[in-house]
Amino acid sequence: MIGKVRFSITMSLDGFVSGPNQSEQNPLGMGGMALHEWLFGLEAWRKSHGEGGGVVNPSTPVVEELESGYGAVVMGRNMFGPIRGPWKDESWRGWWGSDPPYHTPVFVLTHHERGSLQMEGGTTFHFVTDGIEAALARARSAAGQRDVLIAGGASVIQQYLAARLVDEFQISLVPLLLGDGERLLENLDGSIGLEQVEVIEAPRVTHLKYRCIDR
Amino acid sequence: MIGKVRFSITMSLDGFVSGPNQSEQNPLGMGGMALHEWLFGLEAWRKSHGEGGGVVNPSTPVVEELESGYGAVVMGRNMFGPIRGPWKDESWRGWWGSDPPYHTPVFVLTHHERGSLQMEGGTTFHFVTDGIEAALARARSAAGQRDVLIAGGASVIQQYLAARLVDEFQISLVPLLLGDGERLLENLDGSIGLEQVEVIEAPRVTHLKYRCIDR
Repeated sequence: MIGKVRFSITMSLDGFVSGPNQSEQNPLGMGGMALHEWLFGLEAWRKSHGEGGGVVNPSTPVVEELESGYGAVVMGRNMFGPIRGPWKDESWRGWWGSDPPYHTPVFVLTHHERGSLQMEGGTTFHFVTDGIEAALARARSAAGQRDVLIAGGASVIQQYLAARLVDEFQISLVPLLLGDGERLLENLDGSIGLEQVEVIEAPRVTHLKYRCIDR
Repeated sequence: MIGKVRFSITMSLDGFVSGPNQSEQNPLGMGGMALHEWLFGLEAWRKSHGEGGGVVNPSTPVVEELESGYGAVVMGRNMFGPIRGPWKDESWRGWWGSDPPYHTPVFVLTHHERGSLQMEGGTTFHFVTDGIEAALARARSAAGQRDVLIAGGASVIQQYLAARLVDEFQISLVPLLLGDGERLLENLDGSIGLEQVEVIEAPRVTHLKYRCIDR
C-alpha cells in the first residue's frame, strides 16, 4: 500500500487560482483572497490555523480530508515566497510564521541551493534543485505509506500533471470570475485522461474530485 | 412575470466549449465531440433528436429543463454555420437539417442581412444585423413570458455576460482537458457577480447552475 500523489486547490469559475499582480503584500493577487472565502469561515480551517469560532458545513469533511493523510509536501518556490533569483540571505522563512500549517517535510522546488530550514510544529523546508521527479522521490520516501501533497502553485501542478505523476486531485470551484491571473489548467496537451470521482456542493463552492487515468 | 435570459453549455475542465481547428466537417473542433458524450446516450436527448433508445440518469431532468420553457433563441453566426463574410446565396440553412431542434424563433447575430428562413417544426431563423441588444429585444418579444435561450457560441455568451444581460446559466462541466480551442469564460472583467444555485452530479459530468447578481 503506497500513498497517493494528490493536490487540492481553489479555482475561480474562469480557471484562475490567483488574481493578477501578485506581490509580497498580496500573494494571491488582486481579488485572490475572495477565492478562499468559503474556507476562512470554517471551524475546521480556523482550528488548524490557531483561531477559534467558525462554522461546520459540507466543506468541513473536505478540509479535514485535505489536512490529514499526507506525510510530505512539494511546493514551488513562488509558493514558498516572493523572492526570485538566488537567495540573498536566510531571512525569508515562508509566508506562514514560525509554525507553518504543514507539520511534515516540505520539499521546495528551486534552482538555487539553500540549507534545510527546521520550523516549529514538525515542518521542515528542504530545497530541491534537481527537478520535479527528484523532489517527488524524496517526498515519497519521507511520506512512507501516506500521501504526497503537491501544494502548488499552478505551474508546479501543471508540471506534475504533464509528467503523469498525479493520482488524484480536487478542485474547489468558486462562483467568481477573476478575469485575469494565474490559470491552473493550461500548458497541458489534452491527452491526460480524467475520471470524475466525487462532487460535493457546499456554500459558495463546489468540490470536484478527479482521478487521473491512462487512456 | 417575465422569462429569464439564460444559457446552458458544456465545458471542459480546462474551460473550453470546443476544440481547436473547427471546420464544416468538424464543427466542435478536435476533441470537441467528446465534450458531449454525457449527452448523446441520454433517452431525453435522443428522443428530441428523433432517435430511439438511451438511458435515464441524473442528467435527464437537466436536459428536459434545458429543452423546455424557452420561447426564443439567440445565437451567433458561427453557431448557425461555417460561412464567413457576406452570404453567397441562400443555400446554407443551418447544421440541423430541415427540422432544427429549437421549434421557436431563432435570432442569428450577423453583420450581413438575409431574409428570414422558415424551417419545419416551428423553427424560423431571423438574421439580426443591429447588435446583441436589438436581438435580445426581438427575442424577448417573441418569447413572451417564456425564457430566452442564448445558444452560443462562446463569443456571443461573453458579450451578453459583459453587458449584464444574462440572468442565469448552467455549465455542464466534463472531466476532459482539451488543451486548446474556444474558451467560454474570457474577455470578462471580473466584476460580474455570481451566485451558486444548484449542483447536480451525473455520470461523466457535473451540472453547475449560477445566477448573475449585482455586486
